Amino acid sequence: MGEEGRIRIVLDTLGGDNPPAELIRGGLAAARAFGVEVVFAGKRELIERELQGQHFPYSIIEAPEAVTMEDSPAEAVRKKKESSLVQGMIALKEGQAEAFVSPGNTGAVMAAALLQLGRLPGIDRPGIAVPIPKVDGGSLLLIDSGANVDCSPLNLKQFAIMGQVYMQEILGLPRPKIGLLNIGAERGKGNELARKAFELLEGLEGFVGNVESNRLFCDEVDVLVCDGFVGNILLKGVEGAAAAIIALLKGASRERLRARLGALLLAPQFRLLRERLDAAHHGGAPLLGVNGVVIVAHGHSDALAIKNAIKVAKSAVENRLPERIAQGISRHMESLGSP
Amino acid sequence: MGEEGRIRIVLDTLGGDNPPAELIRGGLAAARAFGVEVVFAGKRELIERELQGQHFPYSIIEAPEAVTMEDSPAEAVRKKKESSLVQGMIALKEGQAEAFVSPGNTGAVMAAALLQLGRLPGIDRPGIAVPIPKVDGGSLLLIDSGANVDCSPLNLKQFAIMGQVYMQEILGLPRPKIGLLNIGAERGKGNELARKAFELLEGLEGFVGNVESNRLFCDEVDVLVCDGFVGNILLKGVEGAAAAIIALLKGASRERLRARLGALLLAPQFRLLRERLDAAHHGGAPLLGVNGVVIVAHGHSDALAIKNAIKVAKSAVENRLPERIAQGISRHMESLGSP
Repeated sequence: MGEEGRIRIVLDTLGGDNPPAELIRGGLAAARAFGVEVVFAGKRELIERELQGQHFPYSIIEAPEAVTMEDSPAEAVRKKKESSLVQGMIALKEGQAEAFVSPGNTGAVMAAALLQLGRLPGIDRPGIAVPIPKVDGGSLLLIDSGANVDCSPLNLKQFAIMGQVYMQEILGLPRPKIGLLNIGAERGKGNELARKAFELLEGLEGFVGNVESNRLFCDEVDVLVCDGFVGNILLKGVEGAAAAIIALLKGASRERLRARLGALLLAPQFRLLRERLDAAHHGGAPLLGVNGVVIVAHGHSDALAIKNAIKVAKSAVENRLPERIAQGISRHMESLGSP
Repeated sequence: MGEEGRIRIVLDTLGGDNPPAELIRGGLAAARAFGVEVVFAGKRELIERELQGQHFPYSIIEAPEAVTMEDSPAEAVRKKKESSLVQGMIALKEGQAEAFVSPGNTGAVMAAALLQLGRLPGIDRPGIAVPIPKVDGGSLLLIDSGANVDCSPLNLKQFAIMGQVYMQEILGLPRPKIGLLNIGAERGKGNELARKAFELLEGLEGFVGNVESNRLFCDEVDVLVCDGFVGNILLKGVEGAAAAIIALLKGASRERLRARLGALLLAPQFRLLRERLDAAHHGGAPLLGVNGVVIVAHGHSDALAIKNAIKVAKSAVENRLPERIAQGISRHMESLGSP
């Protein structure tokens, strides 16, 4: 912990689509709102300039190199030693902070986390758990949302257990319902992975069966598991649909006075809609299964999204997320059949 | 052809989620609008009752058994010989009609088509091509949308060629752009299937590379290929997102007068939006690669969707779809490396 017992959270300021200044503003807002100490990883000069005249506890890790979205994860982690991503992760490993937040290259965050922190015992592959808002409030956890493009049935079962623990312990949901993302509700549907995963998941408490993607926003499940390729395609498809709908309504309201007035009257609902559907505003997605608190923020994250991601990180630290997941996994160890 | 050279189209009246009467109304509307002869497959008594007093050319195939959405495709085709699906497909095979339209169990339609009609030469797996509306008008063809849950890279290349031919020959688009559905735009992204398919697709004219699912509604590609598991998850996810958005705005407008007025003023835009996004209104998705014109309609199809599906079927017959696809495939035969 930092000064006065503050939780210290590393913010990777060089990885996102937005300029570092925007991300730094998010860190500043989080420090003010949640009383955490933000450890800014990036270009010292730039960070100091942005924070000039601000009085709150913070620290800086000088790490001027940026890992870009185009970098190959394995290579970036190996070659870009001076990057904010690698240096930030090392700071977490060495106990200079309790959590790490990055809006950067997801694959590279995962690779750096695996290299520096390692996996929790009993976990073969960490998974990214993205919260998706439901229509009636609350949210569903989609895991894996993009960390693993090819998965085994056992990977999916481990995602289910980690998701369950996260919902129970961090979000305080007593008995989370777990579903398997599939193309039909009936048993026996789906591709080979889904059919085999179904058999493995059947023994799991809270497993409710297959869930089709058109039920994503309904209140049927709390944790939905799939491989990272399918999860990422689904997540971005939903984002694209929401953007298309907003574009369509905006286009119409530019053309017609009546529609313009209608859109104006509905403005609060559209704002709510955008917030509910835009992943950016939901901030952080935890990388579950690594031995540390690592939160992946959306690449397009603005200051508000970063602030939210830091809030998620703080809560994960307070609730000892990695420890709880390790306990959850160890409770299921026998059924998992792994050492 | 039927009386006066009319194109004859079999309509499976027992397979959809809606009652047969609704589907029969769609057939009637299509016969009136497009001058086709509808061959109603189902319960004769029910069909005659619905069509009482209507004067237009039609015929009936007595086939009282229904294949349900829960039936296993292979079993349904083998055991339900008296079903509207099986009998309708046999009528197509025997030349009593030129096309077949069903809102039923997609897997069973595919199985019956394979059994009765067979595949076109050079095609290993038929694929379902669903048109998805773009924001700026026009539509994108997503293939495969659910016929094949596990695919090889070569299957994806064949889908690409069939989609290209369909866009060129049936929808009249001169140089369709083809994309590979993936989780990143860069080369080398994706799971094993996507990476290998990319290599195979590179040689294909019109191939523009990887396309992420958030670009689905943008004007970047005309044909998007993927395996049927991923395609189906994406399609239903987008449907679910659209439904959730409409539910959210409707819920808000019930609560507040201001929002109610806004929704009222925007009513034409919402109607357009629902039509553009609701797959049902887009009617027919061709099953490409089988030796005959087979159109799969959405399970929830109402009369309007059935009417649209019959329109798609008519156009496919007029443009000799299977023949054109066979020609397109044979042009690519060498690069496909299949016999």
